[in-house]
Amino acid sequence: MKNQAYRMALLYDFYGDTLTQRQREFYDLYYNEDLSLAEIAENYGITRQGVRDVIVRAEAALTELEDKTGIIRRFHRMQEQLLALDGLLKTVSAINEARCQDDELERCCIQMKGILEQLKQE
Amino acid sequence: MKNQAYRMALLYDFYGDTLTQRQREFYDLYYNEDLSLAEIAENYGITRQGVRDVIVRAEAALTELEDKTGIIRRFHRMQEQLLALDGLLKTVSAINEARCQDDELERCCIQMKGILEQLKQE
Repeated sequence: MKNQAYRMALLYDFYGDTLTQRQREFYDLYYNEDLSLAEIAENYGITRQGVRDVIVRAEAALTELEDKTGIIRRFHRMQEQLLALDGLLKTVSAINEARCQDDELERCCIQMKGILEQLKQE
Repeated sequence: MKNQAYRMALLYDFYGDTLTQRQREFYDLYYNEDLSLAEIAENYGITRQGVRDVIVRAEAALTELEDKTGIIRRFHRMQEQLLALDGLLKTVSAINEARCQDDELERCCIQMKGILEQLKQE
């Protein structure tokens, strides 16, 4: 299961709060705290297979939500466009420095850069 | 129910595909085709209350998803920041026109405007 850790982290970031408390707990121990299935099983006094079932069901629930809504794909498209904006903004800034040297334009560039940074954090 | 039509349209846009087929059908007839509960009930040969139950459950499911994930709130924050970028970009364009008159800078502004338009459609 862990070979898809990045994908799972993304899914969890978006949809994790739709899981049950137990699913979230096991998911967190397994993916974030890096405990093994056997270790989680021992801590909770259940079988390794029982832990595995909970995590597999959680993964399936998260995956199904994304398959149906496509919200993460939507975010990814936005992030790509933000990168393109970032590149263009750098060009604008460079042009201003090289040819226009306009202080107000420079301040606008700095503000836009700040907003883009915030948007990339979303 | 219909007084929250805008909120429901948003929820449906993001999470509608997680509903059952029947929930989507009734929801669509009620909110988009503007049929009454009684009209839908007659078309499907069920009670008005039966139709109402399906739609109320659908609304509850969509609302719960947003309450848990906060994804629409996240999108709204992004849209506000995109508006701020838009305003700054207009200022940059105006400064260029008034003081710099740099063709490359103008092309950058046009490209950025295009990307921002796409982002606002997401």
